[in-house]
Amino acid sequence: MNMNKFLNPKSIAVVGVSSNPAKIGAVIFLNIIKGGFNGDVYAVNPKHKEVLGHPCYPSLSALPEVVDVAVIATPAPTVPSILEEAKKKGIKHAVVISGGFGESGRKDLEEAFKKAAEGMHVIGPNCLGIYSAKSRFDTLFFPHYKLERPPYGDIAIISQSGGVGSAFLSLASKNGLGMHSFVSYGNAYNIDESDLIKAYGAMNEAKIILMYVEGVGDGRKFTSALTYAASKKPVIVLKAGKEGKAKKAATTHTGALAGDYLAYKAAFKKAGVLEAYSLEDMFDMAKIFNQPLPKGKRLGIITNGGGFGVMATDAAMKLGLEMPSLSKQTLDEIKGKIPEYVTPANPFDVVADADVSRYREVLRAMLKDPNIDMVLVNILFQPPAINSAVVEELTSFLGSKPIAVVVPGGEVEARLRQMLTMSGIPSYPYPEKGVQALYALYKYSKARGIAKG
Amino acid sequence: MNMNKFLNPKSIAVVGVSSNPAKIGAVIFLNIIKGGFNGDVYAVNPKHKEVLGHPCYPSLSALPEVVDVAVIATPAPTVPSILEEAKKKGIKHAVVISGGFGESGRKDLEEAFKKAAEGMHVIGPNCLGIYSAKSRFDTLFFPHYKLERPPYGDIAIISQSGGVGSAFLSLASKNGLGMHSFVSYGNAYNIDESDLIKAYGAMNEAKIILMYVEGVGDGRKFTSALTYAASKKPVIVLKAGKEGKAKKAATTHTGALAGDYLAYKAAFKKAGVLEAYSLEDMFDMAKIFNQPLPKGKRLGIITNGGGFGVMATDAAMKLGLEMPSLSKQTLDEIKGKIPEYVTPANPFDVVADADVSRYREVLRAMLKDPNIDMVLVNILFQPPAINSAVVEELTSFLGSKPIAVVVPGGEVEARLRQMLTMSGIPSYPYPEKGVQALYALYKYSKARGIAKG
Repeated sequence: MNMNKFLNPKSIAVVGVSSNPAKIGAVIFLNIIKGGFNGDVYAVNPKHKEVLGHPCYPSLSALPEVVDVAVIATPAPTVPSILEEAKKKGIKHAVVISGGFGESGRKDLEEAFKKAAEGMHVIGPNCLGIYSAKSRFDTLFFPHYKLERPPYGDIAIISQSGGVGSAFLSLASKNGLGMHSFVSYGNAYNIDESDLIKAYGAMNEAKIILMYVEGVGDGRKFTSALTYAASKKPVIVLKAGKEGKAKKAATTHTGALAGDYLAYKAAFKKAGVLEAYSLEDMFDMAKIFNQPLPKGKRLGIITNGGGFGVMATDAAMKLGLEMPSLSKQTLDEIKGKIPEYVTPANPFDVVADADVSRYREVLRAMLKDPNIDMVLVNILFQPPAINSAVVEELTSFLGSKPIAVVVPGGEVEARLRQMLTMSGIPSYPYPEKGVQALYALYKYSKARGIAKG
Repeated sequence: MNMNKFLNPKSIAVVGVSSNPAKIGAVIFLNIIKGGFNGDVYAVNPKHKEVLGHPCYPSLSALPEVVDVAVIATPAPTVPSILEEAKKKGIKHAVVISGGFGESGRKDLEEAFKKAAEGMHVIGPNCLGIYSAKSRFDTLFFPHYKLERPPYGDIAIISQSGGVGSAFLSLASKNGLGMHSFVSYGNAYNIDESDLIKAYGAMNEAKIILMYVEGVGDGRKFTSALTYAASKKPVIVLKAGKEGKAKKAATTHTGALAGDYLAYKAAFKKAGVLEAYSLEDMFDMAKIFNQPLPKGKRLGIITNGGGFGVMATDAAMKLGLEMPSLSKQTLDEIKGKIPEYVTPANPFDVVADADVSRYREVLRAMLKDPNIDMVLVNILFQPPAINSAVVEELTSFLGSKPIAVVVPGGEVEARLRQMLTMSGIPSYPYPEKGVQALYALYKYSKARGIAKG
């Protein structure tokens, strides 16, 4: 499988483009056209010569070129023959959005699909398909006004559930988190989760792999793919459908057996992948991995709101992180640079009238402190003394030790969090979230033999 | 203490209004003027005859009337004599914003403050003071462009930390959650946390009390106040500064001893108050208490994204909620009203092409189902078939059984969540959060002898 063809095709065809712009095939076609995809795009539908203002071809075989990817959004019974036709034309990659196969009890169509797909690389069926931020090729049938596409970055997400993956894209967009790509693989009749994990493991541009999974077909292949990918980069997996009714619901959802959760847990541990326990958890963890790995578990906290220092410290204590006193060197360094009424400590309460320069002096000293491995910076953005220049200031300190920033609050604060995340600084709305993310980074660092403690 | 005077004063004076609009006294004065407060507002500062375009009085005694509340934002050493002057004038209520007392080692000023405040009702010092949504009187020194004030509603928050309380206000504003008022009480030299809890317990307009606390002065008084308030309405408490370094940090923060966390836990349990474990947790719980109390722990889930149904079910199983099969009555009721390819179950996956009417039919049937005590509705808002008319539809079902709605995702989805919350429907960004909130409501209902199970 050539994953690059899927993510950066030079030409694509959408089969099943209806003249009704609200129908799935039409939404996908228009999204690709309007989204800024730079290659050739063809609409295919035997019923039209022109559709939505674009020329329309009766079939894949009638296309003037052999496209890199065929996107198929036609009723399930028609899919096997369309795949056969694609193969005959010489098309090697296809994404099948349509549902209505094994998950709806149509084992016959499942078998026909598998047979037709032989010799090709096919994602799906019953999926959202692909989102590639670089080429702007995506097969998501969600209009842009309902799902803003996130900026380009280095996080990839592989999701058995299309909805969960696209909710993640929406969160990434809102938070300014750069995404490399997203693959929703659905029933996985031809290309499965393990093929995708392996492909992403080998892909240099994707620096972090996220995965949402309910059940897998081949457990041994899955463990092997995870082990390979985790040897190359951080892999974070969320396993849903853990027990009882949830396990049953997962089976109904994708037709794949959810399996024994404890067996999954054991496989994750063995493979060296990180487990996320919710979508929020996965999102929070994904942000932190652009930071250098900490050499230990000694946390420094800076805050302009005492209460947030206390809550962050509570979270650190709960996770077993250490919060050493500041070294004499740090106290000397800070002396004379902060007002007398500000007392150096850890957590370091720079108090409500702290401006950007006070944050700078304290953060600089703390990052140099030999007792400190990583720093959590809390910014209550409401006091008049602080402003968004803090983004540039914090950015200048990136690189030596891991930093996470907490900006608690709603609308105005969300804008600051977005600025921070877009500048490469992981940002969080609650102190516990920032501490948990740094803890996850520490655990990863320890598992790789870098962090002590 | 007449809490109504503090929250709905007819006249107020701000002592310490500087001609520099960025200084604390000036920010407070301008916020009150610009925020729409309807009463008389006086600026007091012996240095000016006019300040920021408004007349300025040299002292409280020079004011043309006895104001309901004096707000004091002058250096700590000047505060005791200003309080004495207020008392002489006949002013009975004061809010002291200024810090620099016991928490900065000035025990002498602490004693002088306490003595001067005798015979008055004084909030503070070292606090943000008051926010009252109805009268639009607030003493927060955060400009409106940095802290949007939330709409009027029935939730009150009492916070030892000003920053934590104001971050909550910001979250409430962003989410459309109505707030009654907020009191940040700081060092509590005259009016303490227990006085406030008791006053809010007796106040009909405040239906839910939230509290952030690090340490209290009088434990017995605190437990008694909590017990009284919890007998009247839901009380949710977040105790920070739990252990080790966090406990120490809390003491540094407000000068109050953080005390033994287990003793607090025991007191909360005895008093019948709910404990929140983070600011996020408190925010999520606060939203659900406008719903009717459930009669049991049997949860129904509706979703248009299978993965979210699976994750919500995982969360329900983890908390020990039950998810019964739908009754025959429900299956009959639903028959013919939903497409053949949609399979009734719990979780009920109405699938990605569900429109508002499909949600209506399924929710109506589930709310009538004798096996179901409460319903979680998940709305993936990205598919073309769903739109914001779902808000009106869901609103029409409020009242019989508790409903919580999950709308996963970023920007567009946040707008839908806001619309829902403003319409009285508790909404959440992640399935686990919605399930946890319903669970908290069930626990409360059970503790009050209403829910079984």
